[in-house]
Amino acid sequence: MSAHPREKSIHLILIGDELLNGNIADLNGKWLGRYLNSKGHSLASIDIIPDRPSTIALCLEKYLVSPGPSIVILSGGLGPTKDDRTKNAVADYFSKPLEERADLIETLKTRYEKRQKSWNPATNHYHLFPKDMTPLENPSGLAPGIFYEQTQKAVICAPGVPHEFESMLMEFFENQRTDLLSSEEAIYSLQIRTRFLPEEDIFGKIAPNLWNQLERWGKVSSLPRAFGVDIMVELKNQNHLFEDEIEEIKAYLKETPLNPYIWHIGPESLPEKIILEAKEKSIMIGLAESCTGGLAASFLTDVPGSSEVFLGSVVSYANEVKENILNVKTETLKKHGAVSSEVAAEMAKGGVKALKCDICLSFSGIAGPGGGSPKKPVGTVAIGIATSDEVHADIFYFSAKENRERLKRRFALRGLHQLLDQIRKY
Amino acid sequence: MSAHPREKSIHLILIGDELLNGNIADLNGKWLGRYLNSKGHSLASIDIIPDRPSTIALCLEKYLVSPGPSIVILSGGLGPTKDDRTKNAVADYFSKPLEERADLIETLKTRYEKRQKSWNPATNHYHLFPKDMTPLENPSGLAPGIFYEQTQKAVICAPGVPHEFESMLMEFFENQRTDLLSSEEAIYSLQIRTRFLPEEDIFGKIAPNLWNQLERWGKVSSLPRAFGVDIMVELKNQNHLFEDEIEEIKAYLKETPLNPYIWHIGPESLPEKIILEAKEKSIMIGLAESCTGGLAASFLTDVPGSSEVFLGSVVSYANEVKENILNVKTETLKKHGAVSSEVAAEMAKGGVKALKCDICLSFSGIAGPGGGSPKKPVGTVAIGIATSDEVHADIFYFSAKENRERLKRRFALRGLHQLLDQIRKY
Repeated sequence: MSAHPREKSIHLILIGDELLNGNIADLNGKWLGRYLNSKGHSLASIDIIPDRPSTIALCLEKYLVSPGPSIVILSGGLGPTKDDRTKNAVADYFSKPLEERADLIETLKTRYEKRQKSWNPATNHYHLFPKDMTPLENPSGLAPGIFYEQTQKAVICAPGVPHEFESMLMEFFENQRTDLLSSEEAIYSLQIRTRFLPEEDIFGKIAPNLWNQLERWGKVSSLPRAFGVDIMVELKNQNHLFEDEIEEIKAYLKETPLNPYIWHIGPESLPEKIILEAKEKSIMIGLAESCTGGLAASFLTDVPGSSEVFLGSVVSYANEVKENILNVKTETLKKHGAVSSEVAAEMAKGGVKALKCDICLSFSGIAGPGGGSPKKPVGTVAIGIATSDEVHADIFYFSAKENRERLKRRFALRGLHQLLDQIRKY
Repeated sequence: MSAHPREKSIHLILIGDELLNGNIADLNGKWLGRYLNSKGHSLASIDIIPDRPSTIALCLEKYLVSPGPSIVILSGGLGPTKDDRTKNAVADYFSKPLEERADLIETLKTRYEKRQKSWNPATNHYHLFPKDMTPLENPSGLAPGIFYEQTQKAVICAPGVPHEFESMLMEFFENQRTDLLSSEEAIYSLQIRTRFLPEEDIFGKIAPNLWNQLERWGKVSSLPRAFGVDIMVELKNQNHLFEDEIEEIKAYLKETPLNPYIWHIGPESLPEKIILEAKEKSIMIGLAESCTGGLAASFLTDVPGSSEVFLGSVVSYANEVKENILNVKTETLKKHGAVSSEVAAEMAKGGVKALKCDICLSFSGIAGPGGGSPKKPVGTVAIGIATSDEVHADIFYFSAKENRERLKRRFALRGLHQLLDQIRKY
């Protein structure tokens, strides 16, 4: 897998029928991948398997018999119900009986008292623990994790609930066993974020040598996003500093024909960039939403500290709300329909007044599945942007084949790109 | 795996470094799991592996050498860039050379012309295709999929982009090869949705026999959610109708002590239930949000047809917006602070007036990471609910250990439970 003979291979096994029958999507893999990268490691694979002891054993076996050092992290199946089978499966696999642990009983009693409850063995079996294995502190929940080590192989079981999974692993790797992830190398995945061009135009037409040139600095990969392509360069070095490489890459990119399509180089998301740049210029922003239904505001308010520059959003789903709060004229609605550049422009202007902001972004469109017409099909959105003395609005068309949630997301992100541009020229 | 000797085992292999380094979370697994269930099948496993031909081959091998019929679906790595290696890896694995396909060239030319572009082999290599394999129609994109069949084994390669993945598989299974997923049995996963009790209280105290009793109808599993537990019963039968079992289970549950904690039995989400029940009673709803920043509105507007009963949301992030649009009194803000039941109550009352709705739900809280204080720590939220002649508000405290996005989500869902209750007693 790697040229470096000592590199640890780290595998994640996600256990739970709910991950295979469409009830929930996993979040722990994404978090762990990023976390390991920040520590100079990579996640080699993820297996998602049902709550079945024989399958858990087979999957564990696969990684424990492979040569070289490895860490296998299991997520899920540590709770109190009958379909929580990870502890027993791991104990059985290593032929370790479960035994009552006095220290766990103490911890459990204290934990339950803190929650004004009492623990007893009828509540759960968290006090029964595989012999010779080490319980792991659960900073955000009740079920203890499991750690077991053999020559070159470490096995960790953590709960599937994301905040328990994350806090347990951080506690363990950063306070208990810092040696496990110690690394001479650091990894930094530099993100070159482009927009409005498909992959094949970037690498086939605009900048055919780009990929090869970027490979001078590290492994290159390309990830299509809603409105463009993120090009990633995986930087690795031993001094844990990447400033020089990043400056070199930035200088190189400035000279390429791709430059006008790059909206950001770095890990920040579009909402993060908007909040950051609005703060730098002390621009107060507001939204007037219809079809996005609050999603654009939610994207911006996901950013910590957004309250310094984001004043609010008028989600005017009904036309009456557009009229009453945003001052959209009844005749404009009648003449052009709610989904029109005229209404989007009035919404944005009305938003500047109602919210007393410097820039207001507005949306009016059709997210479907109903409400489309031949002239204005599902996927149509009018996006307006206004300042105190200027307003303009455009109509965009997206594929009616996308579902409602994805169209809302596309509308919101397309508008946020307009907002970023407006902040930049403000 | 199953008692039924002929049951197909279906495996999904997700290919892409971006799924292992934390850049994106997979969505195709969740969709496929649900889709297969609806056809009477289950997804047996998911492997997430890097864009490396040797790893792709090893993973494919694992499922092709296992006994019995199986379908292996690969997702990702079919695009035009250098890190798209799935087609070559699969061709190599089966020792099939790539050959130029005249039919693919025709399709590509037509497809590009439709987009006012022209295709040529410099754009991509979609016209080179593994010998003896079948190209799959891509209804939402350009890269063709791949189908290859050997005795009892079928391999399908589809793009990783979710709407291309979904539309290609639906087209293939429903129009091209309906035989592959034909099943005598249908599966229905009945969801019993409870709230405000942890798993161990449900199965340890309130209803200790519930699990065994429910097993009379099918496999039982339990999934902890933000505010309660979803208990799932996997119903299987050959007549494809589940009404009788569902009625039996509902009648049984009515007699159990769990009944008051069940807020819904069925697949609908909380926002779906709210919209549905508001429609039944013709109740117009509105929101006045602060800390949730538009997320509660976005949840409601994810539901198709929500515009029939959802009028809008005033996302009043800044206090001035609370005062100007929602008519919150300056002195209330000064005396009690923005995060108080007094302000939440005024927001909800103001929302009823500003949006002209029958019920308005309001939120004011601290999602962090900044802004907390000893008296009002991060995780505190005031939730108000008003009708034209009634208002009340409560304060809730959630763990400050949760991150900002998760706290926003918890706040929003907690409030939506209040809203559902209010609709029920309206």
